[in-house]
Amino acid sequence: MLYDEIMKIVTLAGELMLQAQDEELTVFDKEGTANFVTKHDKEIQFYLIQNLRQLIPEATFLAEEDGMQQELGDGYCFIIDPIDGTTNFIFDYKHSCISVGLTKFGRMLFGCVYNPYTREMYSAVKGEGAKLNGKEIHCSDKGLADNLVAFGTARYQTEDTDRIFDYAKKLYLNSLGIRAGGSAALDICRVASGANGVYLELMLYPWDYAAASLIVMEAGGFISTAEGGMITLDQPCSILAAGRQCWKEASQLLSE
Amino acid sequence: MLYDEIMKIVTLAGELMLQAQDEELTVFDKEGTANFVTKHDKEIQFYLIQNLRQLIPEATFLAEEDGMQQELGDGYCFIIDPIDGTTNFIFDYKHSCISVGLTKFGRMLFGCVYNPYTREMYSAVKGEGAKLNGKEIHCSDKGLADNLVAFGTARYQTEDTDRIFDYAKKLYLNSLGIRAGGSAALDICRVASGANGVYLELMLYPWDYAAASLIVMEAGGFISTAEGGMITLDQPCSILAAGRQCWKEASQLLSE
Repeated sequence: MLYDEIMKIVTLAGELMLQAQDEELTVFDKEGTANFVTKHDKEIQFYLIQNLRQLIPEATFLAEEDGMQQELGDGYCFIIDPIDGTTNFIFDYKHSCISVGLTKFGRMLFGCVYNPYTREMYSAVKGEGAKLNGKEIHCSDKGLADNLVAFGTARYQTEDTDRIFDYAKKLYLNSLGIRAGGSAALDICRVASGANGVYLELMLYPWDYAAASLIVMEAGGFISTAEGGMITLDQPCSILAAGRQCWKEASQLLSE
Repeated sequence: MLYDEIMKIVTLAGELMLQAQDEELTVFDKEGTANFVTKHDKEIQFYLIQNLRQLIPEATFLAEEDGMQQELGDGYCFIIDPIDGTTNFIFDYKHSCISVGLTKFGRMLFGCVYNPYTREMYSAVKGEGAKLNGKEIHCSDKGLADNLVAFGTARYQTEDTDRIFDYAKKLYLNSLGIRAGGSAALDICRVASGANGVYLELMLYPWDYAAASLIVMEAGGFISTAEGGMITLDQPCSILAAGRQCWKEASQLLSE
């Protein structure tokens, strides 16, 4: 089965992440203060592309490192983040993941997000629901008052700082508590499993959320931009992912 | 060795946490919206006290559940949080811990904080340094610009909301990024290991930070109230834990 094969490759790539953690990390700046790239990021992306290409030789790739950005196109396209939560990875936070999505005709067919530290594999096949380690998961059907809210920030996106902290405070005051985990893909998957009621971030790239977007939708949740519009898989956008009731309440709060 | 015996008991209590996760959790309100108590909280506390009492029969206990609060006194006193990060525990966040500190003459002698999900045991003996799974750890010696900053909030402490979000934004703008993990004990231990440069929260109870306070000091860091005063082990206070350089910069920012 194709999707099982993809998850096998992603799980093995997770082993590379675990092995890398004990080595000294080579870190350098990319575009901004916190936008780190490590050699392991590149190694894992290379490993993924090499192996995924054997599964679907005609597939194209949209990936974070090495200028692999291409058009999504109508054929198969893998959307890859080799390490989502790179800063966490560098600081040994044990909250980073590998994210792999597969599109056809520009739409999500399959997505998986793997946290090798906790051995949690979130996955979804279009129309078949969402799973965590093979077990069905569902977004919370309760409102903000019964849920945790998580947010993310991009350190190199300082013009959004006041807005994201204002939003975070608003959501916090109407919820059980606030979290900021530092990995958008995992924090959106936590919406799918009901751990987070809401995830909000104002600027993300498709590789950060593509796989997780299918997972949260298949878990019965909504994913939109912060303004409630459709998310885009071929260009960056803001993300508001939530269970249905939480999404309604959060959209209302953000538009006030 | 006494301290090894304590860590064995705490590790076994961690197994109880892992087992509990698969059961349905019985949740009810205590004092406020998010101040959950589960039956597992109480079970784990009972297990800890029962076993620790065998190690030091004359010891007193300062513990979160069941009104176990007592004076610290001059003899041995265990300061216990059976599950720090209870809301995380309920939502299956895999970021909660057991915290056990030991005082004599009202001062920390030993502390350990255990995350059973990642099997990370942070520990410190007064004067002998801090360890993570037996390996020495040290706070970051760099400043805010090269570090992550973490903060915590108590949902039942709404009068501090504006202040904590203002502080969090200030620290964020001078650092690599912001995190909110939802377990003060673990997030302070992450300061000890250099994963967090700073941890800030405006109201915590001694069982939240007692063990972690020794761990961060033995790792070469500072721990004070948000205003820079001495922390108290016999009553609640605010907490600013950081590596030395980060502590200087953070104190400056918070007093501006």
